[in-house]
Amino acid sequence: MAQQERAVRTRNALIESAAELFCKDGFDVVSLSTISARAGVSNGALHFHFASKAALAAAVWEAAAQRLRRITVEGRARAEAAGGPGAAGSGGSLQVLVDTTHALLRGLRHDVILRAGFDLSESPVPVAAGADLRRRWQTWVEGVLAEAAREGALARDVAPQDAAHAVVAATVGFGALGSRNAQWLSQSMLTRFWALLLPRLATEAALKGLVPSGRREGTAGADAVPPPFRVTARSGA
Amino acid sequence: MAQQERAVRTRNALIESAAELFCKDGFDVVSLSTISARAGVSNGALHFHFASKAALAAAVWEAAAQRLRRITVEGRARAEAAGGPGAAGSGGSLQVLVDTTHALLRGLRHDVILRAGFDLSESPVPVAAGADLRRRWQTWVEGVLAEAAREGALARDVAPQDAAHAVVAATVGFGALGSRNAQWLSQSMLTRFWALLLPRLATEAALKGLVPSGRREGTAGADAVPPPFRVTARSGA
Repeated sequence: MAQQERAVRTRNALIESAAELFCKDGFDVVSLSTISARAGVSNGALHFHFASKAALAAAVWEAAAQRLRRITVEGRARAEAAGGPGAAGSGGSLQVLVDTTHALLRGLRHDVILRAGFDLSESPVPVAAGADLRRRWQTWVEGVLAEAAREGALARDVAPQDAAHAVVAATVGFGALGSRNAQWLSQSMLTRFWALLLPRLATEAALKGLVPSGRREGTAGADAVPPPFRVTARSGA
Repeated sequence: MAQQERAVRTRNALIESAAELFCKDGFDVVSLSTISARAGVSNGALHFHFASKAALAAAVWEAAAQRLRRITVEGRARAEAAGGPGAAGSGGSLQVLVDTTHALLRGLRHDVILRAGFDLSESPVPVAAGADLRRRWQTWVEGVLAEAAREGALARDVAPQDAAHAVVAATVGFGALGSRNAQWLSQSMLTRFWALLLPRLATEAALKGLVPSGRREGTAGADAVPPPFRVTARSGA
């Protein structure tokens, strides 16, 4: 049992080291011996766990996919705990979307495995068939915005699909720009993005309940809402 | 003279082949001999022009930077030909921005050198100090939106800087997503993005003159405007 635990720990250390080095130097450049040295294990131990660099990349990707799943599933769970996505005061599915984009950027800021998973999704040679985190993210965003439309929270002249494309493009852009300059992954940057976009996406009634800076765990619910949305009149000509 | 022309042609062929292979297989994987073989020149000829793969990457990047410069400079020139960016009917700087994003995505769709230049800007190891096309693009977008604000075309509660960040993130996202799926670089995708965003950015007066699908060369001017913006009422609650 202790041996099995040690094996799991070694495997995780290898995945973490690989993720760090893939992000820093790029997948193609990194050698297996650099990865094992960084993880503090022998080359033999690495080869016991992973037959090739591709196998290691696939494991990094799988770990990242799990994290993305947790981020998106938790977003929904929080909304349900707050009385269901359509509940009054919870902000509905649009707020779930805002919260989850904040969780994703926070993840990209702090979690090298998540970052490496997205980077691997960008590489010319995919780590595995269908192994595209951005594609999974897109599917999730499309689902949440379709739900927001069903809740009647989307402005009448906004197609959920168009809104999804804009949100996916922007979040992928924040992630890509953030790999060079962490400013792009900051909460304030994303908050200003939502403060810009939400008045266009949401009906006026839905807009009032929305928090562009996102609600964190434990703060869900109508009266724990942080800085409320400043509803400003659209400036006409 | 003929010899000099031949040298220029060889150099360009090498840059083009390198750009193609960098995009297809990634910078780190491609060998110099693959590049020279694709360009139909000898290894010796390659080494005559470029001392290293890094030197070749720098040349690809420089060619891409020139193309980006042309795209952004031409955008402004077209606007001025149509009576100055602030001229009635021309749509002002906001239209210049729309047109130029269309030109950029068209470039990324068709021009492998521009695409490679943006890819090289993303790579963990920069090809040269300050060699970041996305940073240059950001600076340009910020300038145009500041100008739109001076023209009074931006809605009162929209900060030019926030608008610039949203546009840069989205266009970088379209580019990144487009490297796997060309759909993201299509004119219709970008047109729907602008149809979503412009009613939020522009004053109602400015909005009427704007063409989300962009104006192409030769069509600038008030009465040659393609599908006009459908001004739809914001759906309140």
